[in-house]
Amino acid sequence: MSELSFKISAGDALTAEKITEAGDKPTEAVATYALRLGDDALILAQRLGWWIARAPELEEDVALGNIALDQLGHARSFLSYAALAWDTTEDKLAYFRDEPEFVNAQLVEQPNGDFAHTIARQFIVSYYQFELYRRLMESSDVTIAAISAKAAKEVDYHRDHASQWVLRLALGTEESRKRMIAGLAVMWPYVDELFRDDELVSSLGAAAVLPSSLREDFDALTGAVLAEAELERPEGFVASGGGREGIHTEFLGPLLAEMQVLARAHPEATW
Amino acid sequence: MSELSFKISAGDALTAEKITEAGDKPTEAVATYALRLGDDALILAQRLGWWIARAPELEEDVALGNIALDQLGHARSFLSYAALAWDTTEDKLAYFRDEPEFVNAQLVEQPNGDFAHTIARQFIVSYYQFELYRRLMESSDVTIAAISAKAAKEVDYHRDHASQWVLRLALGTEESRKRMIAGLAVMWPYVDELFRDDELVSSLGAAAVLPSSLREDFDALTGAVLAEAELERPEGFVASGGGREGIHTEFLGPLLAEMQVLARAHPEATW
Repeated sequence: MSELSFKISAGDALTAEKITEAGDKPTEAVATYALRLGDDALILAQRLGWWIARAPELEEDVALGNIALDQLGHARSFLSYAALAWDTTEDKLAYFRDEPEFVNAQLVEQPNGDFAHTIARQFIVSYYQFELYRRLMESSDVTIAAISAKAAKEVDYHRDHASQWVLRLALGTEESRKRMIAGLAVMWPYVDELFRDDELVSSLGAAAVLPSSLREDFDALTGAVLAEAELERPEGFVASGGGREGIHTEFLGPLLAEMQVLARAHPEATW
Repeated sequence: MSELSFKISAGDALTAEKITEAGDKPTEAVATYALRLGDDALILAQRLGWWIARAPELEEDVALGNIALDQLGHARSFLSYAALAWDTTEDKLAYFRDEPEFVNAQLVEQPNGDFAHTIARQFIVSYYQFELYRRLMESSDVTIAAISAKAAKEVDYHRDHASQWVLRLALGTEESRKRMIAGLAVMWPYVDELFRDDELVSSLGAAAVLPSSLREDFDALTGAVLAEAELERPEGFVASGGGREGIHTEFLGPLLAEMQVLARAHPEATW
């Protein structure tokens, strides 16, 4: 039993620092998988952080800020684990990769838009992440399992937060309903990509979860909220995707530029 | 003994919601004082939130994000209390006042600049706030005292965070030292305003604290850190100030525009 498995069975929270310290190297394939999970969370955190003191209510500012920090925490853990495979660091992975090396799903890089756009993105991503992390708690990779156990608990709250807002906006005023519908229409084309299987995931066996296997529960659970909100599930245009292979929409570039400018300006500085 | 004093003696955290619920109206003067404290924290939170996923290290992103959320929490409490005096709400005070109605000190509205600028601002503001809140724990106004007790504990950590960074940057590389010196030079002109007494504060007696009475400890404690960092205390230009009377630098306007646009776009929407 590795040092890490001991730590996990002791029920401690598995921080990025502990993962680095334990040094249990993932295989190349597991590292690439962890990178996907980490990039999703990192890019989402960057988008959500923007809302601090800009949401329609101060209470909501705090809520979105907390969700951003949760996602940033998950990102740090997954990136720290991936970094072990390539003798690098979470910071180098975050700040020194170029756009084609980012393997997040295109959904999370979509702009904040108005508040309803952000809620639509949160609604989709939190239901997806909850199903994913819930299953990854059983991953044969003990580190992935431990990170996912903590993440599932937090994302469960994100899911609750998003569905409450979908209901509030959809059943609020005529204007808020119109905006909620528009937000869902803009974000829904990026749903499909989340549930596509590929060679990497298939090759990982019990260490990973086939995205396609999450779709049924995602559809049922989001469907129930949409029904309660008296909303149709958006149909039509499906984005071609490719985020997992480094193909991104026009929105990731500017986000990365802002995110990376400081670290890149002084790569040698002991910040 | 009011309902609120009972709650405080029970040692509960005093949230914005509880303050509103308790409904213990402050006097006009106390409300104006609470507004100053709240505006300082609100504007600072907005500035700091920008750093989520943009700092030079992921760990630092999390730290600045947490500090932003602490400040936002203090802002909510102070604004909720002020709101009781004028039959309004924390959200209306945050999103529907115009620039001349904001009474924050000019320091907190100064731009993030590079990371060393932000740290310089944090260094000044956290040492100031700690001395202030520590004394306000003894305020004769029981609500101000309770909010300050919670805030002092959190700001003590902010102080530690800022001073560690001042040392790290000043004693790091030649480049980081140069930037730390530049950051302090840009922010120091706004120190003086923090410690100016005026009629309002004088009239409040034991409910408030005379800003001038904090200066000696502020100078001694920041001086010790600067000495350890082998830095001179910046001298020279002192900004004319006026933030407490609604006079602001060119930087507050754009900040408020971004902060308020969503709430103002749909004032009637049940967000």
